[in-house]
Amino acid sequence: MDKIRIGIVGYGNLGRGAELALTQNPDMELVGIFSRRGAAAAGAGGSQARFFGMESLEDFRGAIDVLLLCGGSKADLPEQGPALAAQFNTVDSFDNHARIPEYFEQVDAAAREAGTTAIISVGWDPGLFSLVRLLGEAVLPQGQTATFWGKGVSQGHSDALRRVAGVRDAVQYTIPVEAAMAQVRAGGGADLTTRDRHRRECFVVLEPGADADRVTREILAMPYYFADYETTVRFVSAEELARDHDAMPHGGTVIRRGQSGRGRSQNLEFSLQLESNPEFTASVLVAYGRAAWRLAQLGQTGAKTVLDVAPRLLSPRPAAQLRETLL
Amino acid sequence: MDKIRIGIVGYGNLGRGAELALTQNPDMELVGIFSRRGAAAAGAGGSQARFFGMESLEDFRGAIDVLLLCGGSKADLPEQGPALAAQFNTVDSFDNHARIPEYFEQVDAAAREAGTTAIISVGWDPGLFSLVRLLGEAVLPQGQTATFWGKGVSQGHSDALRRVAGVRDAVQYTIPVEAAMAQVRAGGGADLTTRDRHRRECFVVLEPGADADRVTREILAMPYYFADYETTVRFVSAEELARDHDAMPHGGTVIRRGQSGRGRSQNLEFSLQLESNPEFTASVLVAYGRAAWRLAQLGQTGAKTVLDVAPRLLSPRPAAQLRETLL
Repeated sequence: MDKIRIGIVGYGNLGRGAELALTQNPDMELVGIFSRRGAAAAGAGGSQARFFGMESLEDFRGAIDVLLLCGGSKADLPEQGPALAAQFNTVDSFDNHARIPEYFEQVDAAAREAGTTAIISVGWDPGLFSLVRLLGEAVLPQGQTATFWGKGVSQGHSDALRRVAGVRDAVQYTIPVEAAMAQVRAGGGADLTTRDRHRRECFVVLEPGADADRVTREILAMPYYFADYETTVRFVSAEELARDHDAMPHGGTVIRRGQSGRGRSQNLEFSLQLESNPEFTASVLVAYGRAAWRLAQLGQTGAKTVLDVAPRLLSPRPAAQLRETLL
Repeated sequence: MDKIRIGIVGYGNLGRGAELALTQNPDMELVGIFSRRGAAAAGAGGSQARFFGMESLEDFRGAIDVLLLCGGSKADLPEQGPALAAQFNTVDSFDNHARIPEYFEQVDAAAREAGTTAIISVGWDPGLFSLVRLLGEAVLPQGQTATFWGKGVSQGHSDALRRVAGVRDAVQYTIPVEAAMAQVRAGGGADLTTRDRHRRECFVVLEPGADADRVTREILAMPYYFADYETTVRFVSAEELARDHDAMPHGGTVIRRGQSGRGRSQNLEFSLQLESNPEFTASVLVAYGRAAWRLAQLGQTGAKTVLDVAPRLLSPRPAAQLRETLL
């Protein structure tokens, strides 16, 4: 069987994760990695891949079956998503929730015109969590869904800490409030906001001479990010931060609690506990890359999301074998 | 919008659950309930539905969009599944794991010839658990999947207890072993069998004069059902059994633990805690009934399983709204 020929666009944590994930999927092969640094990125971290500049991409039309877009949702994907869907089948992890409808329309228009398939917003949230939220509400139409995130590192909140004067470096963990989870599982908590369901833990390295009390006060007062959350701030050395807080763990839980016909309670719960958030997200992208190629071969072009993809298309195994072993 | 016209075949716990579930899905309407008892079942449990004998089914061709087959996997479905797929779009909960491939082929042949769509083996296991097992292995190809069942009532094991001489009535609970679950979550337990992962709790009502010690010994020695499990037997009065063990709770957990590229551990877990097993299973059947109708309208005929169904087809909500609220 011909292998599915994959290109990776962008070579940050997600792109590196995708490169690693491809080694676990023998039905796919990595043709090349495309980034702004181009060939200069070759050999980084021991990579055996071929590296190219973004401008080389058009030379690979017909030689790449699916592009995994591993850039960021802020600056990269709004431009790359529609532009590359006009040339290739693509999968991306666009996660700017509020802008997903608009992004979908732009990618859809480009993909339809080009006759390509583009699966957007793939990962775990949006992604697998979206799929479970759909299952939950479809199967239990009378009920409530709650999502808890963490324990995990939030890049946005870590960045916010680093913008405080006197902060040299920092890492922020989002942590679900156990008591709130228990409340939701027991059928309560309908009035809990995202802020009630999570607390925030900050590990901060100060600049020499910075005033720890002032930094703490400024962090705790920061609107949107910390002011309305239960937040703790701990000061650590640069060495301690590098040693203990360098990993990128994350995870979360989706809970659907519903009532069936006679008022019986039915709980459905999906959770992830990830030692590496970017490696897991990349693994999801790779599986949906397989689905994108199959949808394209079926002539199902245009923009798609995880909600549009039959689960079977994610697996390299034949349908009869899946029925035999998984049902 | 026209409602999806549903027929229910079989009126045991599952059929009653489907009738209740339909009241929670305003885009569907119940045309009638078909069973061996026929019109004699009318009004049972306060039902407002119209009841018919099985022989009336053929009068409803063209008047029913999807039949929910709520009979048992042992005696009813092997015959009804292929026969009714030759006349209607169908959904069933065929759960005899070993015979699913053969059943699939039979239903598929009937449905293809008739141009109908038949989704087989729908429910939670097989069903939602199968779907999660597929997601787990597709996203984390290097890893292990373990399924734990319970706490819940096993009808098969309860029946086995009732066959012991001196037993008047009995209920058996299958209970997952917490220590085994913890082991699997932590990356161990690869060698644990189904027997190591579960224990069994039996509540038994004796016939007057029966010897409790002999009954206990016979139960604990019963091969396949109890001999290799940690099993406890408790004797209760008929009143206590009726009062405390009349519900049909069930549930379970699927755990996928995998390693991504650099050996980082990634855990994915899906669990159900159900106060009513038949009502939940029926709710899943109803949601897949909607999908069966949509697949039929798309011309996707033949036998399908949950692995073939794009999640979006389960929801009554428009695709754009789903993207906006769930992604």
